[in-house]
Amino acid sequence: MSRGRFITFEGTEGVGKSTQLRFAEEWLKQRQVDVVVTREPGGTPLAETIREVLLAPRDERMDDLTELLLVFAARAQHLNQLIRPHLAAGRWVLCDRFTDATYAYQGGGRGLSIQAIEQLENLVQGAMRPDHVVLLDAPVEVGMARARKRGELDRFEQEAVDFFERIRRTYLARAEQWPARYHVLDAAQTVECVSASLGAALTRILGDSAD
Amino acid sequence: MSRGRFITFEGTEGVGKSTQLRFAEEWLKQRQVDVVVTREPGGTPLAETIREVLLAPRDERMDDLTELLLVFAARAQHLNQLIRPHLAAGRWVLCDRFTDATYAYQGGGRGLSIQAIEQLENLVQGAMRPDHVVLLDAPVEVGMARARKRGELDRFEQEAVDFFERIRRTYLARAEQWPARYHVLDAAQTVECVSASLGAALTRILGDSAD
Repeated sequence: MSRGRFITFEGTEGVGKSTQLRFAEEWLKQRQVDVVVTREPGGTPLAETIREVLLAPRDERMDDLTELLLVFAARAQHLNQLIRPHLAAGRWVLCDRFTDATYAYQGGGRGLSIQAIEQLENLVQGAMRPDHVVLLDAPVEVGMARARKRGELDRFEQEAVDFFERIRRTYLARAEQWPARYHVLDAAQTVECVSASLGAALTRILGDSAD
Repeated sequence: MSRGRFITFEGTEGVGKSTQLRFAEEWLKQRQVDVVVTREPGGTPLAETIREVLLAPRDERMDDLTELLLVFAARAQHLNQLIRPHLAAGRWVLCDRFTDATYAYQGGGRGLSIQAIEQLENLVQGAMRPDHVVLLDAPVEVGMARARKRGELDRFEQEAVDFFERIRRTYLARAEQWPARYHVLDAAQTVECVSASLGAALTRILGDSAD
């Protein structure tokens, strides 16, 4: 039995990650791929508890380093209790956000040192990286408008537009650095158009994984 | 105005840390020292929330690395929001457990790599270390019997005696490595005897800090 593929979905708020993740899940299931869908921060009951600590608005300012360490604490739990066992059993794991989001939000957004993030990435993941990253890219105003329509904004979504611009630029810079691993989709298009591009990307991924 | 002193209190379960910490607080107050008492994990509302996540018994096994990262997430918050500001304002900070406990519990107890702990210590604390560590040392059975009398055992206290033996040995090894910083008190003695030894140690600390 071959190891499953680990595909992460990334992008700023409101770019349609959840919608496209569901599309990918259905698309793969129709092709008899055994798929597990999960998200970060979270994915196990304990990691979801850490997610609540991260996202809850509070009076006390959360130290940037505390935020970074909480993200990796949840990730260690998620990776060792859920992601690695599923991949080892041959299943494909689709994950809503992963370490690219840490580089983008805590690094690009909050200005935390990239070296600190790399250190924690190596500590928690060893050499493990996603096989593929689907990056849904859209101008920040497009995503913000959609996120706002969904209802109340959480602690991250209350941040200024400039914060999200830095996040978007970090994502795009990483995609440029590792073009084989990143699939950048234009998320300003209609849902159907984005799904069509995603289907084309999945066709290539499924073809490669059959080799 | 001089920087305050940072004194941590360490030891396995039931050695009387809380009692001796209160004694030290009173002793210093009587000598007109401005004292703040705090604890780890915890010390701020957010860090106390992380403490609850760490100590709550649950069905899901907590990954050792998750535990380590949660401890340092709480520590970053505590250090930057509470400890450093108080020290900078000239106050003395007495803390129930600090990074020595991480070396002892997560390193010695759980067998996590010392290098990983050192990496996180440097990331979160920079060069900052306690000025003095009061180590209350007693045979493990003595402390366990006292802890059991206090009522229900939490997740850490449910661990086997061997686990606490490894913790005790790690504490003692660290005290031997940095004898100037560590004050090892025999906690198997009566409370009054331990307090007398602690008073003697505080006299030396207060004398040194006046230089």
